[in-house]
Amino acid sequence: MDYKNEKLFEEKVFKDPVHRYIHVRDKVIWDVIGTREFQRLRRIRQLGTTYLVFHGAEHSRFQHSLGVYEIVRRIIDDGFSGRAEWNDEERLLTLCAALLHDLGHGPFSHAFEKVFTLDHEKFTQAILTGETEVNKVLRRVSPDFPQQVADVIGKTHPDKLVVSLISSQIDADRMDYLQRDAYYTGVSYGHFDMERILRVMRPAEEQVVIKFSGMHAVEDYIMSRYQMYWQVYFHPVSRSAEVILMKILHRATHLYNEGYPFKVEPVHFKSFFERTFDLEDYISLDEGVLMTYFQWWRKEKDAILSDLCDRFLNRRLFQYAEFNPATEYRKIGELEKLYKEAGLDPEYYLVTDSSSDLPYDFYRPGEENERVPIYLQMPNGELSELSRSSEIVDAISGKRRTDHKMYFPEDVLESDGNPLYKKILQLLRGE
Amino acid sequence: MDYKNEKLFEEKVFKDPVHRYIHVRDKVIWDVIGTREFQRLRRIRQLGTTYLVFHGAEHSRFQHSLGVYEIVRRIIDDGFSGRAEWNDEERLLTLCAALLHDLGHGPFSHAFEKVFTLDHEKFTQAILTGETEVNKVLRRVSPDFPQQVADVIGKTHPDKLVVSLISSQIDADRMDYLQRDAYYTGVSYGHFDMERILRVMRPAEEQVVIKFSGMHAVEDYIMSRYQMYWQVYFHPVSRSAEVILMKILHRATHLYNEGYPFKVEPVHFKSFFERTFDLEDYISLDEGVLMTYFQWWRKEKDAILSDLCDRFLNRRLFQYAEFNPATEYRKIGELEKLYKEAGLDPEYYLVTDSSSDLPYDFYRPGEENERVPIYLQMPNGELSELSRSSEIVDAISGKRRTDHKMYFPEDVLESDGNPLYKKILQLLRGE
Amino acid sequence: MDYKNEKLFEEKVFKDPVHRYIHVRDKVIWDVIGTREFQRLRRIRQLGTTYLVFHGAEHSRFQHSLGVYEIVRRIIDDGFSGRAEWNDEERLLTLCAALLHDLGHGPFSHAFEKVFTLDHEKFTQAILTGETEVNKVLRRVSPDFPQQVADVIGKTHPDKLVVSLISSQIDADRMDYLQRDAYYTGVSYGHFDMERILRVMRPAEEQVVIKFSGMHAVEDYIMSRYQMYWQVYFHPVSRSAEVILMKILHRATHLYNEGYPFKVEPVHFKSFFERTFDLEDYISLDEGVLMTYFQWWRKEKDAILSDLCDRFLNRRLFQYAEFNPATEYRKIGELEKLYKEAGLDPEYYLVTDSSSDLPYDFYRPGEENERVPIYLQMPNGELSELSRSSEIVDAISGKRRTDHKMYFPEDVLESDGNPLYKKILQLLRGE
Amino acid sequence: MDYKNEKLFEEKVFKDPVHRYIHVRDKVIWDVIGTREFQRLRRIRQLGTTYLVFHGAEHSRFQHSLGVYEIVRRIIDDGFSGRAEWNDEERLLTLCAALLHDLGHGPFSHAFEKVFTLDHEKFTQAILTGETEVNKVLRRVSPDFPQQVADVIGKTHPDKLVVSLISSQIDADRMDYLQRDAYYTGVSYGHFDMERILRVMRPAEEQVVIKFSGMHAVEDYIMSRYQMYWQVYFHPVSRSAEVILMKILHRATHLYNEGYPFKVEPVHFKSFFERTFDLEDYISLDEGVLMTYFQWWRKEKDAILSDLCDRFLNRRLFQYAEFNPATEYRKIGELEKLYKEAGLDPEYYLVTDSSSDLPYDFYRPGEENERVPIYLQMPNGELSELSRSSEIVDAISGKRRTDHKMYFPEDVLESDGNPLYKKILQLLRGE
Repeated sequence: MDYKNEKLFEEKVFKDPVHRYIHVRDKVIWDVIGTREFQRLRRIRQLGTTYLVFHGAEHSRFQHSLGVYEIVRRIIDDGFSGRAEWNDEERLLTLCAALLHDLGHGPFSHAFEKVFTLDHEKFTQAILTGETEVNKVLRRVSPDFPQQVADVIGKTHPDKLVVSLISSQIDADRMDYLQRDAYYTGVSYGHFDMERILRVMRPAEEQVVIKFSGMHAVEDYIMSRYQMYWQVYFHPVSRSAEVILMKILHRATHLYNEGYPFKVEPVHFKSFFERTFDLEDYISLDEGVLMTYFQWWRKEKDAILSDLCDRFLNRRLFQYAEFNPATEYRKIGELEKLYKEAGLDPEYYLVTDSSSDLPYDFYRPGEENERVPIYLQMPNGELSELSRSSEIVDAISGKRRTDHKMYFPEDVLESDGNPLYKKILQLLRGE
Repeated sequence: MDYKNEKLFEEKVFKDPVHRYIHVRDKVIWDVIGTREFQRLRRIRQLGTTYLVFHGAEHSRFQHSLGVYEIVRRIIDDGFSGRAEWNDEERLLTLCAALLHDLGHGPFSHAFEKVFTLDHEKFTQAILTGETEVNKVLRRVSPDFPQQVADVIGKTHPDKLVVSLISSQIDADRMDYLQRDAYYTGVSYGHFDMERILRVMRPAEEQVVIKFSGMHAVEDYIMSRYQMYWQVYFHPVSRSAEVILMKILHRATHLYNEGYPFKVEPVHFKSFFERTFDLEDYISLDEGVLMTYFQWWRKEKDAILSDLCDRFLNRRLFQYAEFNPATEYRKIGELEKLYKEAGLDPEYYLVTDSSSDLPYDFYRPGEENERVPIYLQMPNGELSELSRSSEIVDAISGKRRTDHKMYFPEDVLESDGNPLYKKILQLLRGE
Repeated sequence: MDYKNEKLFEEKVFKDPVHRYIHVRDKVIWDVIGTREFQRLRRIRQLGTTYLVFHGAEHSRFQHSLGVYEIVRRIIDDGFSGRAEWNDEERLLTLCAALLHDLGHGPFSHAFEKVFTLDHEKFTQAILTGETEVNKVLRRVSPDFPQQVADVIGKTHPDKLVVSLISSQIDADRMDYLQRDAYYTGVSYGHFDMERILRVMRPAEEQVVIKFSGMHAVEDYIMSRYQMYWQVYFHPVSRSAEVILMKILHRATHLYNEGYPFKVEPVHFKSFFERTFDLEDYISLDEGVLMTYFQWWRKEKDAILSDLCDRFLNRRLFQYAEFNPATEYRKIGELEKLYKEAGLDPEYYLVTDSSSDLPYDFYRPGEENERVPIYLQMPNGELSELSRSSEIVDAISGKRRTDHKMYFPEDVLESDGNPLYKKILQLLRGE
Repeated sequence: MDYKNEKLFEEKVFKDPVHRYIHVRDKVIWDVIGTREFQRLRRIRQLGTTYLVFHGAEHSRFQHSLGVYEIVRRIIDDGFSGRAEWNDEERLLTLCAALLHDLGHGPFSHAFEKVFTLDHEKFTQAILTGETEVNKVLRRVSPDFPQQVADVIGKTHPDKLVVSLISSQIDADRMDYLQRDAYYTGVSYGHFDMERILRVMRPAEEQVVIKFSGMHAVEDYIMSRYQMYWQVYFHPVSRSAEVILMKILHRATHLYNEGYPFKVEPVHFKSFFERTFDLEDYISLDEGVLMTYFQWWRKEKDAILSDLCDRFLNRRLFQYAEFNPATEYRKIGELEKLYKEAGLDPEYYLVTDSSSDLPYDFYRPGEENERVPIYLQMPNGELSELSRSSEIVDAISGKRRTDHKMYFPEDVLESDGNPLYKKILQLLRGE
């Protein structure tokens, strides 16, 4: 039989707390899951540093990837084939794209990418099309299959409907992570009636649309997303951990470039410090590796590196204060001056960080990052952009909300009679 | 104020998926949680290799420890003080013992302890009483407080009631892990009515007893435990991963002792290979560190070490077959002979493993590992051992169930036309 | 001991699916629950006709009342007594008001009250202060205690804080019914983090306020309410059943007044038809009694009464069509004319019905039905109205949404070749 | 199109808390649900008097019937058709039997049947094959279809596999009610992994069997059933209500036969008192009707009838005491004598009641009520009776557990200084 149609002798199931069971019948899917690059996702947490606030959030990208796959599988297998031209290879393409959409994520990817100016999406592409186990499996389907999967994930594939199942404002990715992250953190947000949404999804030419009668279920989903962003994803304490993480990587890069004699050679990091890394260097990294280095670096002589690593490992995080860059731009300058007087390096101990989210947006031609809106299929068959029918969605539509904070080592500043410290604290706290 | 009575300015809460919220008011508890040794538990999974079967089981011992603490806190704060002599220090002692009972667990502790013949309980004692951050915190309560906590955990403390809250056949430890492991694996076992059990717990002189009217809730708890053992904890596939893990550690030890030139010096392991480790060596280990080494070793020249590490990291596990040591003792000998003929090392590729559990037991004087039974407090006030009233518990009481398996690399044995391989497989499968 | 301080020998608990357990320690509460008037609530469904759409919604006002009590009990017993002047009698007053706030509800109360122009709140007052079992119990606390309970429920009690716990825009009543109705209907809306809201509630002088950090939990609660209203409470199919119910009561009244010879004398209804009912007449009614009459009336000769009863009992409901009273006011006239031509009585077979909700509102002086807004307690201690901080709440604040529908017997109109029927249908459907 | 193959234009779904959604595509099923006899099940509670203990248990047989249908639908539609000969009519037959298996249940059926020596299963047969709406629908499938459905429900149908899906020791009926009753009562028992059980069910010639790997899921199911029986179904307080209910019906029959002048003629009951009832009389009854009479009878002059009705309506139940008929047979005689001396009628105020359950049984040839055991399909394909493999099931297999209680009006006996009352109480309590 053709590899792309090959079925497992007996269906395999994974027990999953969110979807109960994840079902695999295709040999290709089973083989992809078994590759080294996919198994690596077990060693990368879905929510990075969030586990330092919500201790339940220790789940990996591995299970999220399976979850996205399962949602797409249900959509397809439960008869989404309203679309006439759906065929076996398209089905497999969609399933593989769902399963592999996060393949290029690195350890604590947000911070890591920022420091080394990388882009996990490019790594996803590179892993799919490079010399990897997963590429070998996909190539067995057809020579251009790896590239096709990469195109769907990269949103350049001509089949816009398939693309929209994986990445749009109402896609399988978001539906899985909202529910999964809610489950593991234990928060009460993040719940919505996915089964209903799946029932009201309809294939349109260029994207998935939603039957009008399902509008309230979609509203609920958008509100879930909004709440999860501000309650979980942008939690200031996990951002504090992320800030420290970035500063660790900055410091280590800085020391390396200065020729600092590390006690243990930073083998895994060298090519990143030197910006000469290749795909294998990237795949070799995971959160366990980073944390292992942090344990070594915690024992380094460099006080800043050592302190930051201790903070990260043992959750001695920075405190934060609100900060308005528009009106308080001079504050930072003042603080930096005071820091230096007090012998603290503001580069590492005074960090500003911003979070920003757009809970839902409709299409605004000409803007960068144009977003495809969610369309409702009205009783008369016409499509109508969601915020026209939903006043709740309309209310938050296109409204970017941004939050700025300054992070600082309150424990140090409070620990000592130093009057400069006191002054710094007052300024930070706006007293 | 006395440190032991010091309260936080504002109660801290941890969001917890199992108990909803975990409440901390005592400064001592807060400080203990902040120590390096306790934070280390974030880097050690509660269920070791189980995540390779139940992908949700990525939760750490950190959250389980908080959970046990929370159960005990509720018991005490919701008025378990039927016991007249309960006082502030006893309360704190019980809470600390609950929180710290797993402090000495190492990475994949079952396998690690077996290979290096260690005992995590001894490490718990050592960390509590040694030169550690947690010891420093506990000593502030009173000089002998660390030892007292160690004694409760070690079951040598004279206050048997307090001991029984932390470790007995119906203790806070089990109540947390059954629920937590069920939650994260997603299985339907592991649920029982803990709120009811807490309501029917009564303090007796030497242990916690259960009001007769709560018997069925306790039955349900014991059945949960029974099911979790056979469905989750002894799952043959996670045992397969554990078997491979042990063999990795064996192989590395063997190579080290033979003077094998590791590409990267196994700094963290040397003192274990040489059996010269100290407390700091032990505390420095976690699962991320082990996995980092496995990634290095996967690239070692030694074919066995490299293969085993690849198997563990990328989930290419051994297959298993049933095995009855009483009647098939000669089979192993035959298989070893065939293995050698076929050029396979049986030491690493033919592994027998047994699991065994006693779901509930009553006291049998003179036996080793005597277990304190669960007592019901009958309507007339007398105590009666549980299995006398419950026919379900009676049915499984004292019945040890054991399961023996042989593990082997089916992928290798099936991969090749080698007729010896075929013969081995037939013998393994009892064909 | 004083009756008001009397505790039960052993705490009583009710198993409750929503709050797990409901705890009763006060003798007064236990006695109130045992009264005939309170037990009557078991025979009145919480959601009236909703069970004809969501078959799970068969739960009674009895359990909702216990649920509201339990929430208030937790607020008080978990130390809400930030309020200095809280004392035993106030505590009991608040608990009783919570428990008894729905005492005057009649069977299918919305429809019943509309037809007979009654007000369940007045009946609550009357039952509390009249010659009833519950009055007897409450009077034992103190002679004016029944009146005080009535005043809290009627919102005329001077203690505004206590009033706001039972009825305000974020009260125990709503918190229970949203969760309970969601549980029994099985919808995914209606969930919010009540435990968190309880933790961030603060007593202010005149009402309960919410700590700023709990704003998102309150947003979530308001969204839940919004969704429950439109997805469950205003579901057009349950409104269809309600419309039929009203028409049954209208028809029976009409027939009675005309001297129609009922086969079974409508003993329970006579005093309502004649508008001479007393408290005992009202208390004697419940949904079982109404349905029993409907079964008799289904066998009456009067075709309209018989048909409507059959429709209600056997769920042969009216179909509905959208209707805009502002622009389509002439349509009703046309339809009525056509109905008469076709021999259908528009009085009973063409019914318009509107639903309308205001998800949240702030105070607008001078308007009728002024609503006390929800206040946040800001970090600096000041109070700030919720919609000023929450853009989501701001978006829906004060926006009344109304929905108009026409109900009609589609089955009849479709059943027959009658061209008039066809014309009526086209007009109804706007074709 | 053939009626039996007719599909609805659009699938109908019912929101269900237990199965999330219940799906109906077949026109026949939809029509059956709409019949008067099926809608009547909305007015009969699934658990009779249990709501007086577990207030959540107000759910009706209507929703349970839909639930059983849904389970069977999933089994069939998810490819249980391992069975070659499965065809459209068999499918429909199985679905109808699932949906209608409880059609003949009367109000509080256990008590009602006992008093009037009826059998709800015979009524199910009679309704299916008599002059009813449901019969009319079923006859449209084929003339003998109603009888076939009756035969499956009555277990006389030759297709044993179909019979075993609806009624056997592991059938859709039990799987629905265990989960549903657990959900509505709120107890933690009653949960098991139904999805897994459905996955391991295999069609054998004469019955459904279970793949060996699913044994633990079946154990869990049997334990759930065991716990639900003793914790919920046989709860002594709901039995107390049932005892009172039976005594009400006895008393009313007795009074009627003596020519007692009821204030309101007991129209609905006459034919039962006289044993002349027909099918229509039976169908006209529901719990609302009974409760309506109880409200009338509560105001009757007969003290016993009035008291018993007040007790039932307002939950003034009898207290109970353990009772061993084997050793305490003389106690009843003594008590009856004392009752009479004290002026209490033992016929109505001293009631013995027994509950008894056999959690699981295997086949014992020649015994009455032979039960078909559950078979496991072993890896080698052979069938093996469950208790041979499961030691837990073996432990409880065939062990009938019986519980005897005496019920009495403790409130009366305690209310008064009467020394005979005191003596009676002592004897009852075994003091």
